Amino acid sequence: QMGLAENQLCFDLIQDWLKKNPKASICSPEGLNEFREIAIFQDYHGLPEFRSAVANFMEKVRGNRVTFDPDRIVMSGGATGAHETVAFCLADPGEAFLVPAPYYPGFDRDLRWRTGVKLIPVDSDSSNSFMVTREALENAYEKAQLDNIKVKGLLITNPSNPLGTILDRETLRSIVRFINEKNIHLVCDEIYAATVFSQPDFISVAEILQEDIECNLDLVHIVYSLSKDMGFPGLRVGIIYSYNDAVVSCARKMSSFGLVSTQTQYLIASMLSDNEFVEMFIRESKSRLAARYRVFTRGLDQVGIECLKTSNAGLFLWMDLSRLLKEQTFKAEMGLWRVIIHEVKLNVSPGCSFHCSKPGWFRVCF
Amino acid sequence: QMGLAENQLCFDLIQDWLKKNPKASICSPEGLNEFREIAIFQDYHGLPEFRSAVANFMEKVRGNRVTFDPDRIVMSGGATGAHETVAFCLADPGEAFLVPAPYYPGFDRDLRWRTGVKLIPVDSDSSNSFMVTREALENAYEKAQLDNIKVKGLLITNPSNPLGTILDRETLRSIVRFINEKNIHLVCDEIYAATVFSQPDFISVAEILQEDIECNLDLVHIVYSLSKDMGFPGLRVGIIYSYNDAVVSCARKMSSFGLVSTQTQYLIASMLSDNEFVEMFIRESKSRLAARYRVFTRGLDQVGIECLKTSNAGLFLWMDLSRLLKEQTFKAEMGLWRVIIHEVKLNVSPGCSFHCSKPGWFRVCF
Repeated sequence: QMGLAENQLCFDLIQDWLKKNPKASICSPEGLNEFREIAIFQDYHGLPEFRSAVANFMEKVRGNRVTFDPDRIVMSGGATGAHETVAFCLADPGEAFLVPAPYYPGFDRDLRWRTGVKLIPVDSDSSNSFMVTREALENAYEKAQLDNIKVKGLLITNPSNPLGTILDRETLRSIVRFINEKNIHLVCDEIYAATVFSQPDFISVAEILQEDIECNLDLVHIVYSLSKDMGFPGLRVGIIYSYNDAVVSCARKMSSFGLVSTQTQYLIASMLSDNEFVEMFIRESKSRLAARYRVFTRGLDQVGIECLKTSNAGLFLWMDLSRLLKEQTFKAEMGLWRVIIHEVKLNVSPGCSFHCSKPGWFRVCF
Repeated sequence: QMGLAENQLCFDLIQDWLKKNPKASICSPEGLNEFREIAIFQDYHGLPEFRSAVANFMEKVRGNRVTFDPDRIVMSGGATGAHETVAFCLADPGEAFLVPAPYYPGFDRDLRWRTGVKLIPVDSDSSNSFMVTREALENAYEKAQLDNIKVKGLLITNPSNPLGTILDRETLRSIVRFINEKNIHLVCDEIYAATVFSQPDFISVAEILQEDIECNLDLVHIVYSLSKDMGFPGLRVGIIYSYNDAVVSCARKMSSFGLVSTQTQYLIASMLSDNEFVEMFIRESKSRLAARYRVFTRGLDQVGIECLKTSNAGLFLWMDLSRLLKEQTFKAEMGLWRVIIHEVKLNVSPGCSFHCSKPGWFRVCF
C-alpha cells in the first residue's frame, strides 16, 4: 500500500495517552458523567474547549510563531468538506480557482462537483523543482481572463501533496502580493504542516501575514485537518480558519452539513490541550517520518531511482521514473504505472493524476 | 427551553449500557486495541458493523415488520446533511420538491441553500387535523406546473414535526400512488420514528412498499438519524436509505463531505447491535415519552389550552392558541409569540415559522 498518504507512525503515542487519560473518552466509567451533555450538543460553533485545543495545536505545529483565534476556527467534515465549504463561500458556479500543479487529485471532485466552481492548473517546471513562480501565476491568470473565466482565488497546498516540498518565505510573500494585487482569495491547505521532518522549517501563511506585508486579510483562508498531522482521517476533523469575518460566519452556518461528532470533539479537546503531550507528539512524529524517509530514499538510491531533492515534508516521495518510459508521453507513463501496479505489485500514483505537466513522475507513499 | 425538539429522557439507559460495555469506547483500556484501525478508517461505505447495526435498529423501531439492506445505508452529516445530499442527487437548481405544511423550518435552509432547489408548501386544513390530502397534493403540483416549475419530488416527515402525528396507512398508500403516477421522487423523513408513544403504531413507507402496491422503487428514499430517536444530535449520525441504486451510489460519494466519525460509528455499531438493549430502550423511551405527554397535556388542559388531538408522536405538542389572538393574522401570532417568550419566558415556536396556513398555532417541546 504505497498509494495512500496515511500517517500511522505514532499510534503507540496516542494509545499511551488514551490509557493515561480515561476521562477523555466520554464512554468510559471515568468520563461517563459528560456523555449526556456531549451527545445532545450540536451547536455549530463547536465545543469551546475543542476550538481552543485545535488553535493551540495549530500554533504548536507552526512553531508557536503564530497565534490563532479560537473564534475563527470553523468545523467541517474533514478537509474534503472544508474545501467544498470554502468554495461555496467564495465563488459562484463558473468562477475559478488557480491551483499550482501538480496537485492533489481529490480537489477536482471536492471543490468542483457540487459547487460548479472551476479549477485552473498553474503549470510548473521540473527543471525548477516544480516551484510556484509569479510568472506562472500571471500566465494562468491572464489565460483565464482571455477565456472569459472569472478567477476568484488561488489554492495552494503547503506542504505540497504530491511534491513533499514546502514553500519558502520569498515564494509565500510573492503569492500573498499576487493575490492582494489581483484582489482574489488565497486558500492555503496546510493539512501536512506537522509532517515537515527536516530543515528548513515549515512557514505558514499565517506567519507571512504577521510580517509587515501589505495584504487585505479578508482574502486569506487556511484549511486544516487532523487526518495527516495526527493520522486521524477516520475522525473527520476538518477545520476552516479564515481571517474574513463574513467567511467565518457563512462557513459556520454551512458547517451544519458536516459537523465534527461531539464525541470526537471532546476527545480531541482533551488530547490537544495537553501541551506536554502535543509537543512530544510533534517532535517524535517528525523524527519517525525523517527516519522512514531516509530508509526509503536510501533504498531507491540503491536501485538508481531519483526523487525530488527539495522535499522535506509529507508522507510520500515524488519519484522521477522518466528514464524508464518508452517515450516521454503520459500514455507511456500510464503503461509504466500498470506494470508497477500489476507486476511489481506496488500501489503508486502516476503524475498525470496530479495534473503534472511532465510525464514520468510518480508519488510513492512511505 | 421548549423550542428545541430534544430527547433527553433515556440517558440513564445509555449510560448504564456504556458502563457495562467498556469495549464500545475505543478510548478505554478495554477498547484501545481497536483505536488504531478506527482512527485511520475513512472508507465512505462506513464500517460494515455500523451499517448492519443501524439497519437492525431501523427495523426494530419499525416493529420488525420491514427489513433494511445494510448495503443501502449511506452515511451523512446528520439529517441536515442527508437532506441536502438527497436534494443534490435528485434535483437541479430551480427544480422543486412539494412539502406538506406545516413543516420543519430547517428544510428551507438545508434543502435549498447550496443546491438551488425550491420547496413548495402543500397546504393543509386545521379543520381536517392538518392531514395530507390527495387534493392538496394535486393542487400544489398543478400550481407548480402553471408557474413553470419542474416538480422533482415530494418530501414528507412522518411522524410529523411540528404536528406530532403519524400518517395512516391509507394516506401513505395514496402518497405512494401519487408520486408513482407523477413519476416524481418520494423522500420520507422518518427521524421521529421511535418517538411514537401510543397507538396507532408508526407505519414506515418501507412497510407500504412491501405491500402489493404498484410503485417504481427507484423513486423512494428514507432519511433517518439518531438525533431524535436516541437523542444523539451531537454525534451527527445521519442516514440515507434509498431503494435506488444510482442514488445509493451517488449519495455515498457525496457522503465524503459529511462522514460519520469512525469513533462514533464504532460506538453506535456496538450499542445498536445489542438486541436486548435496543428492544428495552425503544420500549422504555416510548413509555417515558407517553408519561411526559400526559403530564403536559393535562397541564395545558387545566389552563384551557387545546392541542392537536391526533398526535401520538414526537417530542412536542401542536397547541391551538388562536383564541388568544387579537385578530386572526400572522402579525397577531408573532405578537403573541413575543409575549410568550419575553413575559411568560417560554421558548415556543410560532406556526408561521413552520409555514402553517392558519394563524394561532404554536409548537411546544416537552
